[in-house]
Amino acid sequence: MKARVTIMLKDGVLDPQGEAIRHALGGLGFSGVAGVRQGKVIELDLAPELASGDAAAARAEVARMCEGLLANTVIEKYAVEIV
Amino acid sequence: MKARVTIMLKDGVLDPQGEAIRHALGGLGFSGVAGVRQGKVIELDLAPELASGDAAAARAEVARMCEGLLANTVIEKYAVEIV
Repeated sequence: MKARVTIMLKDGVLDPQGEAIRHALGGLGFSGVAGVRQGKVIELDLAPELASGDAAAARAEVARMCEGLLANTVIEKYAVEIV
Repeated sequence: MKARVTIMLKDGVLDPQGEAIRHALGGLGFSGVAGVRQGKVIELDLAPELASGDAAAARAEVARMCEGLLANTVIEKYAVEIV
């Protein structure tokens, strides 16, 4: 079982990295990009014994990993997807 | 229209950042994670005039942005999703 975690800055939080990408795209002639946000994606390869292969339990375990290590929940939001 | 670009290292390429996450998860007591790969996600807010609102044309334009700036196609692969 695999889990994909997508971590983005919360909506109100300034994203200078995204802004730099938007600026660089404009400089390369790609107009028509109104805004850019950059985030992280983390793909976890879960061992079969984790949560006994139950997707809901695996999702809860991965959410605990996000709260404990992967995301800074003060400024970041995360989404867990079991694939 | 929004586009989401997911950029990951290609499969054969060593991912020390992912390996560090896997190690840290183990140290926090999260066993059962066999492997971790970290990548980037870039959300682009496309202006309506881009590609005249046509999803296929917008996807092609975003793919050109990936080839030109967003991804290092020597070691990274990317996926474009129009959302």
